[in-house]
Formats: sequence, structure tokens, C-alpha cells
Amino acid sequence: MTVQALEAARRLAPRFAARAAEHDRDGSFPIEDFRDLREAGLFGLMVPRALGGMEASFAEYAAVATELARGNGATALVFNMHASVTGALGAVTEELAEALGVPDEALAARDRLLTAAAQGSWYAVAMSERGAGARLSQLTTAYEATDEGWHLKGSKTFCSGAGHADGYLVAARSAADQSVVSQFLVPAGDGLTVEPTWDSLGMRATSSHDLHLDVTVPTDRLLGGVEGLALVVAQLMPHWLVASYAAVYVGVARAAIDAAAEHLNARNLAGLPAVRARLGRADAATAAAQLVVAEAARRVDEAPGDEETNRWVWRAKLLAGTTAAEVAASVLEAAGTSATRRGHPLERLYRDARCGSLHPATSDVCADWLGIAALGGDPDRDGSAPRW
Amino acid sequence: MTVQALEAARRLAPRFAARAAEHDRDGSFPIEDFRDLREAGLFGLMVPRALGGMEASFAEYAAVATELARGNGATALVFNMHASVTGALGAVTEELAEALGVPDEALAARDRLLTAAAQGSWYAVAMSERGAGARLSQLTTAYEATDEGWHLKGSKTFCSGAGHADGYLVAARSAADQSVVSQFLVPAGDGLTVEPTWDSLGMRATSSHDLHLDVTVPTDRLLGGVEGLALVVAQLMPHWLVASYAAVYVGVARAAIDAAAEHLNARNLAGLPAVRARLGRADAATAAAQLVVAEAARRVDEAPGDEETNRWVWRAKLLAGTTAAEVAASVLEAAGTSATRRGHPLERLYRDARCGSLHPATSDVCADWLGIAALGGDPDRDGSAPRW
Amino acid sequence: MTVQALEAARRLAPRFAARAAEHDRDGSFPIEDFRDLREAGLFGLMVPRALGGMEASFAEYAAVATELARGNGATALVFNMHASVTGALGAVTEELAEALGVPDEALAARDRLLTAAAQGSWYAVAMSERGAGARLSQLTTAYEATDEGWHLKGSKTFCSGAGHADGYLVAARSAADQSVVSQFLVPAGDGLTVEPTWDSLGMRATSSHDLHLDVTVPTDRLLGGVEGLALVVAQLMPHWLVASYAAVYVGVARAAIDAAAEHLNARNLAGLPAVRARLGRADAATAAAQLVVAEAARRVDEAPGDEETNRWVWRAKLLAGTTAAEVAASVLEAAGTSATRRGHPLERLYRDARCGSLHPATSDVCADWLGIAALGGDPDRDGSAPRW
Amino acid sequence: MTVQALEAARRLAPRFAARAAEHDRDGSFPIEDFRDLREAGLFGLMVPRALGGMEASFAEYAAVATELARGNGATALVFNMHASVTGALGAVTEELAEALGVPDEALAARDRLLTAAAQGSWYAVAMSERGAGARLSQLTTAYEATDEGWHLKGSKTFCSGAGHADGYLVAARSAADQSVVSQFLVPAGDGLTVEPTWDSLGMRATSSHDLHLDVTVPTDRLLGGVEGLALVVAQLMPHWLVASYAAVYVGVARAAIDAAAEHLNARNLAGLPAVRARLGRADAATAAAQLVVAEAARRVDEAPGDEETNRWVWRAKLLAGTTAAEVAASVLEAAGTSATRRGHPLERLYRDARCGSLHPATSDVCADWLGIAALGGDPDRDGSAPRW
Repeated sequence: MTVQALEAARRLAPRFAARAAEHDRDGSFPIEDFRDLREAGLFGLMVPRALGGMEASFAEYAAVATELARGNGATALVFNMHASVTGALGAVTEELAEALGVPDEALAARDRLLTAAAQGSWYAVAMSERGAGARLSQLTTAYEATDEGWHLKGSKTFCSGAGHADGYLVAARSAADQSVVSQFLVPAGDGLTVEPTWDSLGMRATSSHDLHLDVTVPTDRLLGGVEGLALVVAQLMPHWLVASYAAVYVGVARAAIDAAAEHLNARNLAGLPAVRARLGRADAATAAAQLVVAEAARRVDEAPGDEETNRWVWRAKLLAGTTAAEVAASVLEAAGTSATRRGHPLERLYRDARCGSLHPATSDVCADWLGIAALGGDPDRDGSAPRW
Repeated sequence: MTVQALEAARRLAPRFAARAAEHDRDGSFPIEDFRDLREAGLFGLMVPRALGGMEASFAEYAAVATELARGNGATALVFNMHASVTGALGAVTEELAEALGVPDEALAARDRLLTAAAQGSWYAVAMSERGAGARLSQLTTAYEATDEGWHLKGSKTFCSGAGHADGYLVAARSAADQSVVSQFLVPAGDGLTVEPTWDSLGMRATSSHDLHLDVTVPTDRLLGGVEGLALVVAQLMPHWLVASYAAVYVGVARAAIDAAAEHLNARNLAGLPAVRARLGRADAATAAAQLVVAEAARRVDEAPGDEETNRWVWRAKLLAGTTAAEVAASVLEAAGTSATRRGHPLERLYRDARCGSLHPATSDVCADWLGIAALGGDPDRDGSAPRW
Repeated sequence: MTVQALEAARRLAPRFAARAAEHDRDGSFPIEDFRDLREAGLFGLMVPRALGGMEASFAEYAAVATELARGNGATALVFNMHASVTGALGAVTEELAEALGVPDEALAARDRLLTAAAQGSWYAVAMSERGAGARLSQLTTAYEATDEGWHLKGSKTFCSGAGHADGYLVAARSAADQSVVSQFLVPAGDGLTVEPTWDSLGMRATSSHDLHLDVTVPTDRLLGGVEGLALVVAQLMPHWLVASYAAVYVGVARAAIDAAAEHLNARNLAGLPAVRARLGRADAATAAAQLVVAEAARRVDEAPGDEETNRWVWRAKLLAGTTAAEVAASVLEAAGTSATRRGHPLERLYRDARCGSLHPATSDVCADWLGIAALGGDPDRDGSAPRW
Repeated sequence: MTVQALEAARRLAPRFAARAAEHDRDGSFPIEDFRDLREAGLFGLMVPRALGGMEASFAEYAAVATELARGNGATALVFNMHASVTGALGAVTEELAEALGVPDEALAARDRLLTAAAQGSWYAVAMSERGAGARLSQLTTAYEATDEGWHLKGSKTFCSGAGHADGYLVAARSAADQSVVSQFLVPAGDGLTVEPTWDSLGMRATSSHDLHLDVTVPTDRLLGGVEGLALVVAQLMPHWLVASYAAVYVGVARAAIDAAAEHLNARNLAGLPAVRARLGRADAATAAAQLVVAEAARRVDEAPGDEETNRWVWRAKLLAGTTAAEVAASVLEAAGTSATRRGHPLERLYRDARCGSLHPATSDVCADWLGIAALGGDPDRDGSAPRW
């Protein structure tokens, strides 16, 4: 697939870039970017070929995400959520389904969701809650069985793409048994209310608003068909989030270099030694981060969850986040005051780039885990309490 | 004076801080901050006591600027311009006036301007032009003598406080003799048009808009009373701009640390080792930058223009600019995503802090000059062509 | 005093520098440097005037130490130990002595030691022990009263100047009562054996060897004349060690810049932009560190032990250590391979400079304490277990 | 080959490491390391299979070099020279030979040299001269035809492995025609005198001494069999030097992390957060540099000399050099004073690691070239005058 999807991403990136300033200014959702993604068939990127998709590997996904982010990092971040959902659903093999006791109907329902994605639907993730963050154990959104299906009630935050997705992956706790956490794919429509709380330094176009749910969904919308599988699904996803954030920020860093080069050439400042030194070091750091993300993604495909794979994922997250922030700060300094005007790509990229280290696992947390591993320890056992 | 003015600045800073988010959001001018400054008598900070002012030294000014900037860096930057004008005017001694052939009427006019400042007027600087930057030799704004006084025509850019000041220091070129550049103190009013072009990453409340002039001013508004003194006045000002920018950004850095500490304590995150390491290193760097600014200012008072004084001025500019940007980026990372919401002080300070290295002389230019001096060379002779 | 002592230090520094390569190569003690210090009367730097000394303040000491370190950092480090001993002894006021119950004979003995210093004797510190570090509570060197005075037996490590000093400040534990720790000024001579264990990356000329004691000293060599005062004396010293290390490393950083400038000028490489940028940033960082050390020292004189004084001491230690290492590494890179030949000043300074952050309190510990303080906490209560 | 050679390198590295301290201390050549390399057949690494060698790719070479450097960077640097010579000789294809007019006898002579390497001979490079550096155009070593062959006379510097190699690649200028520069493979023996000038901060065991030549070699020792081919051969080598230096310094960085981890675990200090943060960031940076070196090497194999290949080579050189120095400095700080004792691996690695950025092309030069390329320029045309 790579070639086709990657070429599509490269083709779309300039279109996204042309719209990025407006969405950043208004905090509006890049609706046309998502129309472009749909038309290019990219919602099916992670969907198995048998269901009409491209069946991309994680490494292929990472390359696509970086290219999309060169156009607009916010668009790539939202797309990442959809890719995570479809990628995790697609990763449930028949063996795993059998081991978990997933009934055939649930697999059929899963296939319908993936098929819909291949045909142009896309999904957001409604996981985090105020106070609980992304920790499943702290969730307060509740569900219960009713005659019409499952009734969900509660509030989510940081839901990228809220109000625009065709469906939402929602984690909720059983009202009947507090120890049971399940996940549902809730279709857009009545019962969902978006509260526009997202107004951020960077990545402003993700529409990561609050989402209030008071909705009943059909029975087959319980993922896996069995209650209590949320943790299993979650465990299929984390490398997704951590490593795919990284792919996005490599694209942001590269976009900053390109924008700085264009700006400086237009002003005949490319000959200044300090400018060249800044762009040269930025280029090397970004190229390195890109290789690390690719290596992490390759290993996720080959040996997901392995100790060494996880170390590469943390390296990718750490380096992409810190590199993007440092590169954007340095090349903006090279470009000078005229590049700080709102609407200039570097002005936006400087803000977008600062967000990478802050997504979980933060750069400081990744550094701690990597240090423990380098010292022969086990981050799961010895790590500081994570921030997420 | 120090105590009185410094206490006033400390008293005002929290009021500025309370208004900063709104002005940052709207790009509106902090009118109430300037009312506060007027009521505290701070427009007379650099005015001789004999004319009703506080007759502050440059070192005292720097301390005041840092305190004001802890409240709102943008307010402090605009105030800096007024302080530069009054400070430069106040620095024209009788000996210098005599040497330059300044007539008594011009000194009397100068005294009227300074007295007005002590009584509550404030002045902006309209120097830069598109294409010319701040280089006097490239200006296109022209003036000529008329029966009513001097007629000025042209356009200025980056005029902080445009539309709000009581007067503008304007540099213009003689229509009669292109080699003659003079400066005028143009009163606010008819003939001045503000074009709202300022919409920046940071320091958004400075209203550094374009200013179009087509105006006639009375004869006594020619500074020095003799044409062609612009370069002399300019040479009295540059340490002002360079070193006083530095004082502002020390205040911004300190404000970022304080905001991060408050944020982290409110979330019970002060115990995280990575958080402590970030705040500790930020504190040390900011304390160092503050001492360097104070030392530079002290030397400006004692031996303005000396080779060693200039080195301290460049050190101050370099360290304040880089420290503010690095400190704000690091403590924002310590504070986490919740501090990136628009309206949060750290969100604004992160953007404001990036601007310090970009003001002329940029950090890279200062580093170059300092390097030449450390190697025994003469930055005036050996320096790369400056960016400003 | 400052002028006289500071001029002496400046006069001696080039002589130290000329001998530094040889002592670094051989790990030999700079005997001639110490002869120079004696002849310049600098052993009396911290001795009260009434006893023939210069009665320098701590700030004056710091300035002298920096100048000496520009010649040879190792010499300055050993001198620091002597200054610490004489400074701490001199700091025992009559009020304090009375409060501690120090008998008159002990004050007289103290005066004899200080008078001897003013006349040309110098003292080393034998505090640390293998396994215990510098923690008094862990010491195993023991003493007991005998008919001839006090008998001390044990082994010390990191004793800078071992084998060369005229006396050693030795901390030991009472054989009769393990809870009592006292300090003695042990004269050089029989009963002291130097084991040449010091062979280090940098600061090789300090002769910080192991010292084995099996010696009896006269009764009046118990400092304070009363057993158990060790902690009191120790508490008079710590700012000495922490802040005075800092003064030394500022001198090392400045020496590195000067050596690089000389090297680059000799090779006509001063015009390279990358070289200038490196030297310029190194200069600014070193100037800042120097101001911070001076400020810390000034506050130690004015308000020793104050919370704010301690913060400045930690800032000084942190910045001097990190600045020296970074500056030396960067200017060596600017100077190039030809400066890495053994015997070249930069080759030595690069190694010497790395040691500053490692002396207690290490840079990481200082950053932690400063972070706690910036967050409103109490480093004594909240700090990580220190490394020393 | 990879597996076999890589396994051999991994097997040898601990043996090299065990001997490294002694060779570093004495500046002695690691004779036993080279015996090990011979016995493992690694002198034939770059020799075509047809001539008895392993016919490794450049990427395979880079991986081997990194592993060897984890044992002893100095050994790996000298081995690099041999690999460069055999790699460049092996890279002369029949097509190229024909195009250059290389006679058959010369190809046969070349094959004899490569066969000898596969059987256990190794070659050093004697290129640089004092004053000329490595610039062929500035060489003063002269050769002339005699009845017995070619007589060479002159002096070389920085000849790694001098006095130990079986042959030396020597560049010399024709006495008959100053414009003609040729290269010879001079066998060890009479006529070569080693002057032991190498006494360096780091990489002390390379024996990069001066080599004086006054020697006559057989006719077939003129490489290529035709005079004036030196530049052609040189152009086959530069990626060798630049990129293979990089591979060595990645190994040095990794060795530093491993040594720090061992040291810290032995002292139960692995739990300190600051230690973990340092090791974690060091690990990520080193992993990134290693990927960049591998990518550069892969591209050298696929498209040597391509614009994009060159950019990767510069990135590799820049990142490996800066990463090694920063990593070694940081983990030494984590390890503390006890790791600065001479003989401790970290003490040596800290010095070795500083040398990487200084080898040509220096880090600053690489950054400049990369910046020019990022700005769309041509480093060959627009670059600052290189330092080498």
C-alpha cells in the first residue's frame, strides 16, 4: 500500500497547509482536509484488504502521518485517532478473539465498522475524563443494559474531532458492576453534545472539545461483544498513541524547516552563517527523529509489546517531541520577527511544535523509563508514577 | 528614587497581570495599565527632578522595567519606548547642547516635553520603516519647512503604542537635502493615521502598528532646534533599546517560573523530580540573566558607550532573550497540557518569551559581536552585517 | 584588602599557568605556586588584621580565588581548603565562643593558628573517608585522650594538599563516646602517612591523596577546646566549600576562553563565524556565572545561612560547574584538534572543567534544591537524599 | 558476511575494552587488538570474496566499526584507516580502471595488496602533512622515478598506526612535474622513521605519530600504475573517512552509557531520578545517532556521492560527534567523582568522545553544509572555506 497512501498523503499535504492558518486562527475543524482524506480512501488505511481497506502496517501508517503533518499537524493528530481505532480493531486476530471469548456476531459487527471506514466513515476517541485523565480505572462515565441496547451517560474531554466524526470510541464503566469497563463505538447523532472547550496554544484545529453523552446504542456497538474487554483493547492501542504522536511531530519539525528556508530565501538571508548553522542542525535532528520513529514503527509491526520495541517507542516519542519544539524555536529565531506575524506558517508551527512533549507519555516520563531500562531495570516496576 | 518607583512597579505588576490575558487575546492596548503608570508618576521616571521627574538612573530604570514585565511584558515594552525618549532627551547635558550648537529655545522646548512627561504625557517611537528597518540612512519619510512649521509625510512601522501615545518621536529626511536626517516630537492628533497591522505571536498588546504621517508640527518640535541631529540623538538611545529589552525579558522569565510554580502546586505536582529539576535550572538561569542586566545597566550609567560597557549590554541582551525563551519552554513542559489553554499565563508567556531574541540586536548578532570582542577584535569593524 | 590581594592574585596567575602543564602531567603538587602564595602573604587572606592578616570578606575571597584559578584551577582548589579553615576559625566571634563554652585557652590556640597562617603556614582539610564521604555522622577515624594529648587513628581520603600542608583539619570520633565528633588541627610530621591515590581526570595537581593518621597531638590542638564542636565548625564551613568551588570554576571557564582566543588568533581562525559564535556565547555564560558567584559571596558576607543566601550559593555552584564544563567543551571544539595535544592549556582545562559539577553539592542536587525552593518548599525537608 | 564479521566484532570488543585503559595510559598501540583482528579475518573485511575477503558493504563495515569501538574507539579508528584503503582499492571496478587507463599489471598489483590483506596484512594512511593538512594540493612530500622504482622523500603527520602497519598509503608530488600527485603503497621497513609525536587528550592509542620517508619502493607500488591518479583515489575515500568516523563515535557513546550503568548499579545509585533522566536521554540520543550512521552507510552503498547521500553522511558525522561528546559528559556527571579516576572507563571515554566533532569535516562545518543544503544551496559552491 505504502506507495499509494504515501503519495496521496504527499499530494494532500500542500492542500492542508494552505488551509492551516485559517483553522488555526479560528480553532475551526479542517472539514475539507477530512473530505480530502475520505476521497483519497485514507480512512481505510488500517482496514484489512478483505474489508476493502489498504491494510497498512504501522510503519506505513507512521510514514503517512508524518507526510500529513507536514501539511497540518492538527489534521494528522485527529487522523491518528481514527487510525488508532481502526488499527486496534483490525489487530484483533481470530486467535485472540477466540481466546477472549469474542462471539462471532461481535466479529461481524467489528467487520461492519471497518468496512464502513473503508467506505468513508471515520472515528474519534472519547476516552479521557476531567480528573481521571486517560486512566481507565478512574472513569465515571457509566453504562447499563436496556431493552434497546446500551445506555451510556457521562462526560469526556480532549475528544479530538468532537462533533465531526461518524463515531466515537467510548470507554465506560458498568453501572451494575463497577469493576467492569467496556468500550463502545457510539455513532454520531442525538444524545451526544459537544461543549466547545478546546482553545489551546497549539494544534488548535483538532477540536478536542468536551463530549457529553446521554445516549442509547444498539447491542452490537459493544466492542468485542463481551463486557469488560476495555483493558484488552486499550493494551492494543497504547503504542499507537505514543508512537503515532511521534510521527506527527516529525512532520511538524520538517514543515518548520521548510517554512524557514522559504522565508529566508525570499528575504535573501540564506547566506548568514548563523542562519545556516541553525537550519543545518535542525535538519540533522529532524532526520534523526524521523529514522527513530520509522524504526519504532517497524518494530511495533514485527514484535509489538516487546521490551526492546517499547524502548524504541519511548525513544521515538521523546525525540520527536523535543526535536519538534527545539527545531521550531530555533528556525523561528533564524527567520526573525517578520515570521512571528499571525498567519505566518512558522508562527503556528512554533506553537504546534511545543505540544508534542506534553502528550502522554511526556518527554520527561519517556526519559525516566528509558533511563530505568538503560540501567537494567523494569520501567513498569521502577518507574515514577506516570503523569497520565 | 529607586525605592518609590520600584515599589510602584511592584504594586502595579499584579494589576497588569490580571489584565494581560484579555489584551493578549484581543491584541488590544493596555489602556488601564498606562493610566496606572500615569497615576503612579512613572512617566516622569527619567525626567530630571528639576522638571518634576524622578531622575532615575538607567540601572534604576532596568529594575523598574523588570518588575513591570512580571505583570505584562507588552506593557513594559511600550513603557520602554517612552523611557527611551525621555531618557535620551534628559541625557542631553548643557555641555553637549553647547557643543552641538543647540539654541536655548530648543532646550526650553526640550524641557517642556520633559515637564509634560512628568505631568502625565507619554511618548512613542516612530522610527522603523518597511524596507529600511531602523536604519536612519534608509529612511524615506520626508520633512520640509513651511510657514506653519515642519511638514512631515511618510509611513512608519512597528510603532509600539501607536494611537495611544501623546506624542511620537519621528525620524525624517529633509526634502531639501537628502543627507540631512532630523527628529521631531509629533503630537498626537490630526495628520496621524494608525493602520492596525500588528498581530503577532507574542507581545500582542503593544499595538506596534503602522503609523502614516501627513502632518505639520510647530517649529519647536524639531528636536535640538537644529536640523541633522538625528544621529546624535540616536547614538544616545541604542543602549536604551538593547539593554532595556533585556530588562523586560528577565521579568517575563521570572513571571513564567512563578506561574509554573503556582500551577504545579495547585495540582500537587511539585514533588515530581523532573518538575523540580526544570524549575531549579530555570531559576538559576533567570537569576543570572537578571544580574547581567543589572550589571550592564550599572555600567551604562557609569561609562556609557565604553567598549566594556557595550560588551555587558550585548551579554544582557543575549542572555535575557535566550533565557526567557528557554525558561518559558521548559517550565511550560513541566506544567503540562493543562497550562496550554489560551488564557493561562504560561500559554501567553511562552509566546511572549520567544520575542526577546528577535529584537535587535538579535541573540545571534550579539553572540557574534561578543565573540569578536573575546578574540580581541572590534565588532564595529569586523562584525557581520547586522540584521537591523 | 581587595586591591592588594586581588592584584597579587592577578600577578601570580600567569606564573601558575606557566607551571600548570607540568603538574597536570605528573600529578605533582604545585610547590612553587604555594611558595608564591606564601610570599604574597595570601595565606593570611582570611586572618583578622589584629593577627596580622588581610581580614578579607568572603566576596573578596571569591574574587581572589577566581583570579588564582585563571592560572591553575588545582592550585586554587587547594588554596580554597586553607581559606576555608582560616575563614571558619576567624568567623568564631567572641559571642559565639562564649555561647559554645569555648575556654580562653582555646581562643588563644585558635589565634596562634591564625597568626601562623598570616606568617606563612597553610592548612589542609582531612575530612572525607572512604564509605562515609564527608558525612560527619559516618566517620570512623577515632581519637582518645592520652597523657601527651589526643591520639588520633584512622584514614582520610580526598585530602587536597596531602603531604604538603603545614597542618590538617581532622574530624574524628571519640573512642569513649561514639556520639561525640571533634576536630583537631594536626601538625604535619610523624604519624601522618600519605598514600598517593589521587590520579584523576582533572584537577590533577591537587594531590588529593589518602592520609593515614596514627598520631598524638598536644591538648591545644582540639579546636574550640571542648569536645563535640565538630558540627558547629562544619556548619560554619559549608557555604565555603560550595560557593568557593564555584569561584574556582569561573576562573577555569575564563581561562579556557582566553586560551582558545590565543590559539585561534595564532592560527588566523578568528574570522570563522562558528568560532565567533562559540566564543561569544561562552563569554556571556562565563560573565553571568561570575556575577552569580559574586552575588552569592556578597550575601554570604551579609546574611550567612539565610534562606535567600543559600539559594544564591546553590545557583552559584550550579552555574559555575555547568558553565565551566560547557564552555571548555565548546571552545575546545572551536580551537580544533591541534588544541587537544597534551600540554596544550585547553586540553587540561577541558578535563579540569568537568570536575566542577561533581563536587558536592553536585549540579543535579543544586538544581533539585533550587526547584524545591522555587516551588515554595524547603530543600532541607523535601530534598532527595543528597549524594554527599 | 555481516553476521560473521559482526559476531567477531562483538566477541572481540570486551577483549579490547579490557586492554583499553593500559593503552590509553601509556599511549601505546593496541598490538594485541590487531592480532585479534587478524585472527578473526577482519583485515579482509572489505576485500572481494574472489581475493579471499568478506566483501562487506559499507553499511556492514559501519556496523562492525561501531561494535569494535564499544571495546576501544582508538582501535576502531585505526582499523577504519585500513578499511578505507582496502575499501577504496576494492571499489575500483574494471570499468573505472579502463576509463582511467589503469594497466593490467596495476590491477594485478592491486589484487596482490588486497589478497595480502585478506591473509592478514593491514595498511595505514600517511596523507596529512604539517601545514598542508589533508589537502592534496598542498603536499610537499616528493617522489621521483629511479632505476629501482620510486623514491619518496618527505614527512607525514597524524599517521594512525605508524610503526605498526604492514604498509602505508602515501600521497606524494612528482619532483618532475609539480602538478602531478600520485599515491603509493609503501611497505613497512627501512626508509620509514616514526617520530612519536602523538600525545593527545583522547584516542591516545592510535599512535597517530609523524612518519618520515626516505625510501625507494618497487615500480608496482604506484597505485593504479599511472601517475596522477591520487585525486581519483581520494575521491573514492572521503565518505569513508567522514562516515566511518561517525560509526566509531556511536560505539564510544554506547560504551559510555554501558559503563555508567555498570558504575551506578554497583553503587546502588540507579534509583536517583536525575541519574535516570541523564541515562534515558543519553540512550535516546545514541540510538538516534546509530540509526543515522546506518542510514548514511546504506545510502553510500546504494548511491555513493549522490547529493542526498552526502547530506546523510554529514548528518551522521555531525550527530555522532556531538552525541558522543554530550553523552559522555552527561553520564560521567551522573556517575560522579568516583568515575573520574584514571583507569576508569568513563574517564577515558569522556576524553575519547570529545574528539569526534574535531575530525574533518568538523561538526560546525557539517552544520554549515547541511544548512546550505536545507536552504536549497550547494555546499560545494556556497560553503565557508572548510577547515580541512
